[in-house]
Amino acid sequence: MPAADMHTIDTSLWLQPHHDGSAVHIHEGTEPALGGELRVRLRVPVGAGAPVAVWLRSLRDGEPHFEAAIHTPGDASHAYFEAPLLLVNPVQRYRWYVQYREHHGSEHHRWLNAAGWHRRDVPDAFDFRIHTGAGTPDWVKESIMYQVFPDRFENSGAAKPKAGWMVSCDWDTAVQGTGEDTSRQFYGGDLPGIESRLGHLAALGATVLYLTPVFPAASNHRYDASSFDEVDPLLGGDAALISLVASAHARGLRVVGDLTANHTGAGHHWFVDAYQNPASPTGQYYYFNQDHSGYEAWLGVSSLPKLNWNSVALRERFIVAQDSVAVRWLKEPFNLDGWRIDVGNMTGRRGSDDLNHEVARMLRRRIEDVKPGAMLLAESTSDAAHDVPGDGWQGVLSYSNFTRPLWQWLARDPDPEAFAWFFGLPQAGPARIDAEDFVATHREMSAGFDWEVRLANANALDTHDTARAASHMIAGGQELAACAQFSFPGIPLVFAGDEFGLHGFNGEDSRTPIPWDEPEKWGADLRGLYSTLARLRTENRALVDGSLRFIQAEGNLLVYLREHATGSVLCLVARGPVAETNLGVLGLAAMESDTVLMSVGTEPELAVNEEGELLAGFEGPGAVFIRAAASAPWISPAPGGPEVAAL
Amino acid sequence: MPAADMHTIDTSLWLQPHHDGSAVHIHEGTEPALGGELRVRLRVPVGAGAPVAVWLRSLRDGEPHFEAAIHTPGDASHAYFEAPLLLVNPVQRYRWYVQYREHHGSEHHRWLNAAGWHRRDVPDAFDFRIHTGAGTPDWVKESIMYQVFPDRFENSGAAKPKAGWMVSCDWDTAVQGTGEDTSRQFYGGDLPGIESRLGHLAALGATVLYLTPVFPAASNHRYDASSFDEVDPLLGGDAALISLVASAHARGLRVVGDLTANHTGAGHHWFVDAYQNPASPTGQYYYFNQDHSGYEAWLGVSSLPKLNWNSVALRERFIVAQDSVAVRWLKEPFNLDGWRIDVGNMTGRRGSDDLNHEVARMLRRRIEDVKPGAMLLAESTSDAAHDVPGDGWQGVLSYSNFTRPLWQWLARDPDPEAFAWFFGLPQAGPARIDAEDFVATHREMSAGFDWEVRLANANALDTHDTARAASHMIAGGQELAACAQFSFPGIPLVFAGDEFGLHGFNGEDSRTPIPWDEPEKWGADLRGLYSTLARLRTENRALVDGSLRFIQAEGNLLVYLREHATGSVLCLVARGPVAETNLGVLGLAAMESDTVLMSVGTEPELAVNEEGELLAGFEGPGAVFIRAAASAPWISPAPGGPEVAAL
Repeated sequence: MPAADMHTIDTSLWLQPHHDGSAVHIHEGTEPALGGELRVRLRVPVGAGAPVAVWLRSLRDGEPHFEAAIHTPGDASHAYFEAPLLLVNPVQRYRWYVQYREHHGSEHHRWLNAAGWHRRDVPDAFDFRIHTGAGTPDWVKESIMYQVFPDRFENSGAAKPKAGWMVSCDWDTAVQGTGEDTSRQFYGGDLPGIESRLGHLAALGATVLYLTPVFPAASNHRYDASSFDEVDPLLGGDAALISLVASAHARGLRVVGDLTANHTGAGHHWFVDAYQNPASPTGQYYYFNQDHSGYEAWLGVSSLPKLNWNSVALRERFIVAQDSVAVRWLKEPFNLDGWRIDVGNMTGRRGSDDLNHEVARMLRRRIEDVKPGAMLLAESTSDAAHDVPGDGWQGVLSYSNFTRPLWQWLARDPDPEAFAWFFGLPQAGPARIDAEDFVATHREMSAGFDWEVRLANANALDTHDTARAASHMIAGGQELAACAQFSFPGIPLVFAGDEFGLHGFNGEDSRTPIPWDEPEKWGADLRGLYSTLARLRTENRALVDGSLRFIQAEGNLLVYLREHATGSVLCLVARGPVAETNLGVLGLAAMESDTVLMSVGTEPELAVNEEGELLAGFEGPGAVFIRAAASAPWISPAPGGPEVAAL
Repeated sequence: MPAADMHTIDTSLWLQPHHDGSAVHIHEGTEPALGGELRVRLRVPVGAGAPVAVWLRSLRDGEPHFEAAIHTPGDASHAYFEAPLLLVNPVQRYRWYVQYREHHGSEHHRWLNAAGWHRRDVPDAFDFRIHTGAGTPDWVKESIMYQVFPDRFENSGAAKPKAGWMVSCDWDTAVQGTGEDTSRQFYGGDLPGIESRLGHLAALGATVLYLTPVFPAASNHRYDASSFDEVDPLLGGDAALISLVASAHARGLRVVGDLTANHTGAGHHWFVDAYQNPASPTGQYYYFNQDHSGYEAWLGVSSLPKLNWNSVALRERFIVAQDSVAVRWLKEPFNLDGWRIDVGNMTGRRGSDDLNHEVARMLRRRIEDVKPGAMLLAESTSDAAHDVPGDGWQGVLSYSNFTRPLWQWLARDPDPEAFAWFFGLPQAGPARIDAEDFVATHREMSAGFDWEVRLANANALDTHDTARAASHMIAGGQELAACAQFSFPGIPLVFAGDEFGLHGFNGEDSRTPIPWDEPEKWGADLRGLYSTLARLRTENRALVDGSLRFIQAEGNLLVYLREHATGSVLCLVARGPVAETNLGVLGLAAMESDTVLMSVGTEPELAVNEEGELLAGFEGPGAVFIRAAASAPWISPAPGGPEVAAL
């Protein structure tokens, strides 16, 4: 066993011990049940010297506990250390403590938590965690979601009555990004229109259709529902939803709806009744002021009165009852496959009330009763880490851990003269960061989720609430971003139009109707790319739940490995030119032509040196996925040399 | 306004914008009440260029909100930016977003949160926070606590009956650090003994006497109480406590007790009854297994059965009743001034039960009812950040944010042959870190506490549960550590014997009886130092609640500033030799002899350059406190030059 070289270990991502919640790090056959025990594993590249000891630190009822890890058989390039993890609490936290001895005898200690590798003490906030609640259904983790904003996707041509709020538009009328008519522009997209395009979704490889709200409302976005009892007749009514879901199911596509648990529209009959008569059955559903003249609303927008989850009657009507809102649409004849919950981060929160986790748990339990395995994701656009302990939302639609740092890494130079939307931040476009900061941000922002939750978090490049990625990224940047999206842990969430490389300077603008037959309006035809990525994700289990291990991250270059027993995938993404770099990865197999799964942009220059290590360089932006057999000793055992450093 | 130089700002602590919860950062006359508004302020050194814009980001009901900060009148070296902070939730979180423009026109954004300055997105975990609950009494924040372990402090000589568990020892019998008799060695220290030494406490400048448990038990530590109804007769009984508290009060010293809310002794009459008869009134106070043959105990130690806070009867008996345990001893005739709660981090936590915050809140409310302004601190030895939202414990006795990183910074080379206790970590003594890592650890580990809580957290160099600082630190290290202890935010907590520089290789060993009259057993006579530090803390308000601002932190050197309207104190601590360093601080006043408040160890070489900046160097370990008038423009306006960069 060689002595450790701390500088090399601390500065080389690929030489740092690794752990995450993926299968290779959890001893087979153990299940995460409260009071049970898992055997968890740290994998230690021996290239820079192996540790003299490893401990597992867990929190038990609030108190740290150290368990010595046992050195178990590893592979050519890794030592394995294994320790029992007692699942004392519903969310069991833990991290690793690793001791090295350098050649001159001095001892060093390092922590590994879900945010990374640390040479000093770290707080518990970024501990690894395993929750003992119900697992997430496999189909949810395997999903490739396609988001449709119904008014703007496809119009079947069915006649629609005109409502007072509408400003009727032709399909090619310009969308107003901001203005009085923004939410009133009505393009007439409908459910039969969507049904007519299911072949398009299938061709892209989507497995889940996610529909933004379909309930009647007084806006084109329908987040201001006036009822949860029927599908908006403008969209084709209940019959159209029944037909759409049946057609989707026939193709193997699932369909997920969008439910506002934070508010209704001010035109909702619950609210109208409550406002007119505090003694009505819905009188306690909202937050009225003392003289009943005003009420709490989402961000103060009076058309969106906030629901008060203290109300037992609301809980009954929305969740608990046989025919509750949350339940009814999952059952025959509608058969939705789950919900995306709007404004999940604010739901149940107001002032000193914090019923957020309680509402999430109630919804999860009830949905599990009615339709085991249904999807339950929540919108939580910023740091959502502490809202997903595993017994409520299965995962979140967030921008903080993937979308935002990815935009920042792939951002083109912002135009200081033009305002560019960037997640509500007061600035002209994303502030550019390098790959090392992308990794650091991704790790910290993901650390609060256990592995099971990470796999159920949705990774979008953009949505109906954001600008389009293509509008902020370097030329070809969206293609690189899509590669990352389909190869990171989490559900790829494609917003309709992404496959046409559409632009959008803010969320409203991004809702421009799909220009199906006007390729001149497309930014790029990325249908082939998305379909390839979807296929690769389906064919390579590693891309769904393989371990995520960062190999290199510096400036223009991001290299990561998804490891799985059925075969691993090495992903290289270059934002721009990269001089030939030794990836610290054994690449013998990589040069066989069938191991390059795909590439986009500039072709990488790949080579293998005498030690079998993979070298890569890029002349410009590009990405490549390389596959290796499960048994490949991936990490080079000795940096820069053939010396095998077996324990 | 000069253009910004991001490299300088990012690498110079003293040029980074600063904020904390101290008075200079909160607009006068605003109170933190739920639904109210504070005006908070960011102070920006203009030396490296001023920002073009500043925003305050807060979380409101879970949703981020940005508020533009207004540039308000500053001073010669600072721009001030002020923004309204609406207190929407009981713990209001916020952080700052700062935009710079470099001379070539490029824009940069930085975050400032309670953990520091960041060039990339950061999670909410380390946001600044302000809680809207009851404030902490001033006397608590102003405390200088002195901890006494009664069996080992002073024996009045009163005759004591012999109990079965005891191994009677003479005052100079060696303490067994580990072994069967460890908790049975009985030295006979008692309350009259403590009373006889109150003059010693007063001379040191202590303002609060903290007594580890005084209830009857079957051990010398008494954390295994057999009753909460009387003071242990071995200590002198109720009368002795009444007398001790009265004498202490007469000297202006307060007295705080120690209460185990997590467990009792197995010999406690509550437990004996419950164990013998599940139907007894105390039958639900503990966690028994189904056949009543076993029970949950603290870390599995069967002599310490764990209390079950689901029990309404326990809540009544312990907290709620007129004569509850928590209440009775605060009232006449005992008049304790508050409690230190033992094992605060585990209290109310077991498996899926997490009643910790609920119990803390109940205790706080009840104590406030009975004795407004009483102290309520909890032991929480590791990362306690999320257990002190402000409405329960006022603060914690923790090692994670101050004691541990301080030990690590001041550690001497560990002896790999000798086992040395280091907070239960499996290693030979503290892993040494440099000043920059001390600061990073202190900031991250403190970030979860709002300012009011930080001022009520106890900072110990060691306690009856730890080795002694002197045993791990470099020669003279304890003196440096004491200087930090009395000049950091938080209550200095001096464990009896620290003033004699005593050694101890673990917590038991540290309980060696005080060798009052055997100076040859003292490590050093530090009575003068502690008394000086206590006086300085009392005379300089800045040391109690002045802003904490790190100026330099690199290797051997730690420099920080406590700023207050009544005058500021610059603290320099050098672990070893430091070459002459420009502190970036205007030191004109510093060379007047009366501005050097104190120094220990190697005298620093202080000088002022032509620009008025303070230069400092050390030949070896040393510390110095320098005082300046409130109006001093502390931060040098231009790094390395006299150019004034006023906005």
